[in-house]
Formats: sequence, structure tokens, C-alpha cells
Amino acid sequence: MSAETHVVDRLFSAIAVKGSPVCVGIDPRIGSLPEPYRIIDGPAGEQLQAVETWCRDVLELVAPFVPVVKPQIACFEALPSDDALSGVAVYTAVVKAAREMGLMVIGDIKRGDIGTSAGDYAAAHLGHPDGPDAITINTYFGADGIEPFLSVARETGRGCFALVRTSNPSAAPVQDFQAPDGARFYEHLGRLVADLGQADDLVGTSGYSLLGAVVGATYPDEARRLRQIMPRQLFLVPGYGAQGATAEDCTASFDPDGRGAIVSASRSVIYAHSRPEYAGMDWKDAVRQAARDFAEDLRRVLPRQS
Amino acid sequence: MSAETHVVDRLFSAIAVKGSPVCVGIDPRIGSLPEPYRIIDGPAGEQLQAVETWCRDVLELVAPFVPVVKPQIACFEALPSDDALSGVAVYTAVVKAAREMGLMVIGDIKRGDIGTSAGDYAAAHLGHPDGPDAITINTYFGADGIEPFLSVARETGRGCFALVRTSNPSAAPVQDFQAPDGARFYEHLGRLVADLGQADDLVGTSGYSLLGAVVGATYPDEARRLRQIMPRQLFLVPGYGAQGATAEDCTASFDPDGRGAIVSASRSVIYAHSRPEYAGMDWKDAVRQAARDFAEDLRRVLPRQS
Repeated sequence: MSAETHVVDRLFSAIAVKGSPVCVGIDPRIGSLPEPYRIIDGPAGEQLQAVETWCRDVLELVAPFVPVVKPQIACFEALPSDDALSGVAVYTAVVKAAREMGLMVIGDIKRGDIGTSAGDYAAAHLGHPDGPDAITINTYFGADGIEPFLSVARETGRGCFALVRTSNPSAAPVQDFQAPDGARFYEHLGRLVADLGQADDLVGTSGYSLLGAVVGATYPDEARRLRQIMPRQLFLVPGYGAQGATAEDCTASFDPDGRGAIVSASRSVIYAHSRPEYAGMDWKDAVRQAARDFAEDLRRVLPRQS
Repeated sequence: MSAETHVVDRLFSAIAVKGSPVCVGIDPRIGSLPEPYRIIDGPAGEQLQAVETWCRDVLELVAPFVPVVKPQIACFEALPSDDALSGVAVYTAVVKAAREMGLMVIGDIKRGDIGTSAGDYAAAHLGHPDGPDAITINTYFGADGIEPFLSVARETGRGCFALVRTSNPSAAPVQDFQAPDGARFYEHLGRLVADLGQADDLVGTSGYSLLGAVVGATYPDEARRLRQIMPRQLFLVPGYGAQGATAEDCTASFDPDGRGAIVSASRSVIYAHSRPEYAGMDWKDAVRQAARDFAEDLRRVLPRQS
């Protein structure tokens, strides 16, 4: 992945190849893994090895259908560790493996801090030679918590997705806080992100910026509003599948040409063997089929790309 | 550190022993370290070893004067790594070493996510047997992003500090967003935190909750307001020293008895050898003196504890 090509341009190429703007979340939780990867008791090294193998297997299963994967670092941090190996080292290995398979990788790390510490997080994740193509970042610190990430991303040809509207049920009481003119707090954050992301050296030939936004699919009205506020932001859209949003809900995050967003699903794909729709299937067949169905479901509701 | 004693009660005992409610941030940045720890080029293993030794030395230097330390995980994530050791492993070792020296430890990790992923972060950091006594967490996801942390903290006798008002210059344009009744967004978040933290099983005999709040010293008017909104929240107060706030500014975060807050300083103490006030001193003497001066400066402005 070269720094010469803008990250969003590379992403759009990858989406064109696979034919659907979808992303599979890689959320390894030992208790949810299929046999023989599910080692509840055992030496940490064996558990970590099993998780890494399962992640690599899932990457291979979904790679034919999806352009992007999104490892959730929280899951890796929570894995057991021993002196030789830690969950975070497995995260790093999985990111690297995915890129080597030609997948684009969004590190779902939701990091954020002020000035110098933001710079440290940026260096750690966007400055890492084997790091992800993009990361999710927190927005609450404002401009001086975001700019250090943009600076490293620009230098290394990577991208960021700033949290604007999250997909969880408790998002509304916080993020819908309303100003006298009727503006909501999430819109205010959206304007900040639009403003910070519009500089010429951040925008690719696609017209989209390397600073994107996380906008949950579970709130389609809010997503439609944010699509207007942030015309240059690529949206990373969680909430499809296990969290209840449909493909139709997700269309609110796309531009009229059916571009500008990546829809993410995790549990509904990677743990498809536990879903009634895929009952009786081998876990690998279930994951493969769920990834194919997910990609097809989004393709179905979006305008055909020319 | 037993789970039987409430984390804030333990913290107040530790503050009483050292005589000042201060916390030193442990922010290792290789380029800022004194000789011989400053290994700019060299094998990652040697760099990490030097950083760990410097951290342990700093802990020993400040331990006589301060009850609490706050390792900043961003700095550790940004360290180089090799197959045997990573920056995060050094963070874990430093947290453990500090607790073994009898220091209370706040892991400055600013983690946050929705439901299950928040639970993973909570398990990773508050559920870790050698983990910190408390961590900083993000608040933007609302109740279902905070409750998984409270649940693990209650179980393991640890605490959380939720980001409410940060100390950086860009905080105001985001966090001061205003509702029709004049209420600011940071006050809205403060009310949410007060509400989530008031349950009986979260509050210790001190009257303070295991859910505290991060409230920057650089905004004393806002801190005074938040002190009223969050009577049961212990405040973690960054911004003193290198960021420009004075001891007098910090008093806004304390209750009338001079309790209820911990003031944190990082660079102004751990890199004191670079400050004109301590010119010509050996780095160890400079750090020791800066820690003593910091503790004394806060003691000076607070009512004497009975």
C-alpha cells in the first residue's frame, strides 16, 4: 500500500473490485469461537495461537466478497497474555496478515487524547509500517485532538474515521443535545469534522477526504442530515445486522451515486454459525455464505456503479 | 489492593499519608529522557529496557511525595517493539511496579466503545489482576458505553474517571456547545456521569463514587460549575504545570473541605531537568525536587485536613 495513492482512492478501487462497499469486523471473543479454536481453559499461548489462526481463517473466508476488514482492538486487549505473546501482538499480526491478503484494514481503536498524547497514538497506529490503512478516532477533544492524527495520516497515506454519531441505544440522550437554533451536538461535531477534513492536501481525486466519520446505521434520519453536513467525509457505518439496522437503513449514509460509505458488520458474519439462518452448516461455510449475503444485500439497495 | 475497600477510600487514605492530593503522569517519550535512558537509535529491546528502568526510577523518586501516578498508555503504545517485548508490556510492568511500591495507579487509557467492546476494554484493564486502581474512560457513547466499565470496577474494587471537560485549548468550541436553557454540553455530560455514579453500591464511606470525572484545571469556572453538578464525583484534574494552570486554578475542583480532587502533572515533574528552575541539577534531584514542589504547591492552597 503506497503513500502515493490517497487512501480513499485506494478504498474505492478495492470496493470496485469486490463490488460492494462492505466491511467485516474481526471481533475475536474466545467464548464465541467455533471448535477447535474455542479454548476456554488452557495456557495463554495456546489460546492466543488459536485466536490468531481463527482470525486468519476468517480473513481468507471473507476476502473474496469484502474489500475491507475492521479488527476491534478491544477484543484483542482483553485476550490473555503470557511472556512471549500478547493480545495486542496478535492484533498487529492480524492487521498485517489482512493487508498481505490484499484487504484494506480499518483498525477499530477509537483512540483519542489531547495534543502530544494524540500524536503518540497517531505514531503508534498510523505511523506503524505494518499498521492499518485507517483507524477510528475520538472527536470530543476537538481540533487539537484530531490534527495530530491528520498530520501522520497525510504523511503515511492513511486515513481516520472520527466518531460523530455512534450506533448504540444510549447515543441519543448524549449526542442529540440541542442548541437554541435546533442544531444537535452530533451535527456540531459533524461540522467540525467537515471543516478539519476539507483541506486540499487531505482530499483525494474521488473528492473524499482522508478524514472520514463514524455514523451509525441505526439512526438513518441523523445519517441523512450528516451526509449533507459532511459532503467530503467517507462514512464508516456500523449497526447493520446484529445491532438491527437493515441495508435500506444504511442507504442514508451514501451519496446519490451510491458512494461515500462503508457498511460494517461483525457478529452477524464472523459468528454466522450461531445464527438460525445458517443452522447445520460447517462454521466456514456459514461465514463464507454470510459474507456473500451481506455484500449482496448492500449491492441490492445501492445504484449500480458505472 | 483488596476489593473489600472502596477505591476512593483507599485513595483518600493514600492522600492522607502523603499529605497532598497530587498525581504524577508517567509519559515516557524517548526523545525527552535524560541520559543514559535516551536511546534514539538502537535495538528496540534496549530502548524498551531503558524506558522501563527510567519509569521505575521516576516512580521511586516521586513516591515519597505523591500518592498517585498516572501512566499514559499512548506513550507506551508508541514505543518500538520487538518479538520479545512491546511498549504495552512495559506499561503493564510499570503499573505493577508502581502498585508494588504502594502507589495508587490511574491508567490514562481514555478507552471507550459501545456495549460488548466497552466490556472487553473493562475486562482488559479493570479486570487484569495486575492492572491499575482506576482508568480514564470516554463518555461520548453514553450510559451503555459507561456501564460495562462500572460493572467490572465494582467487582474488582477499582474506579473510572469519565472525560467531562478536557484541559486542551480546543476543548471549548466542542464542549461548550449550548442548549436553549443556557446549559452547556459538558454540563449535560456531567449530569449523566453524576446520575450513573450515584448508585449506593458505587459510593464509598467517603461519600464519593467509584465513577469520577476528568475536569481540566485550565477552565476553573467550568470546574466550579461541575463541582456543583457532580457532588459525588472525584475529579482527576490535568492541566497544572506545563499546560499553564496554577494551584489556585485547581482549587475550583475541590469541595469546601479541600477534598474531592486529584491534581495531575506530567512533563513539569518527570522532565524537570529541562526546566530553568532546576537548571544544573542532576535529573534525579530535579525530579525529586519538582515532585516535592508540586505537592507543596497544592498543599499551600488547600484547607489543612483534620
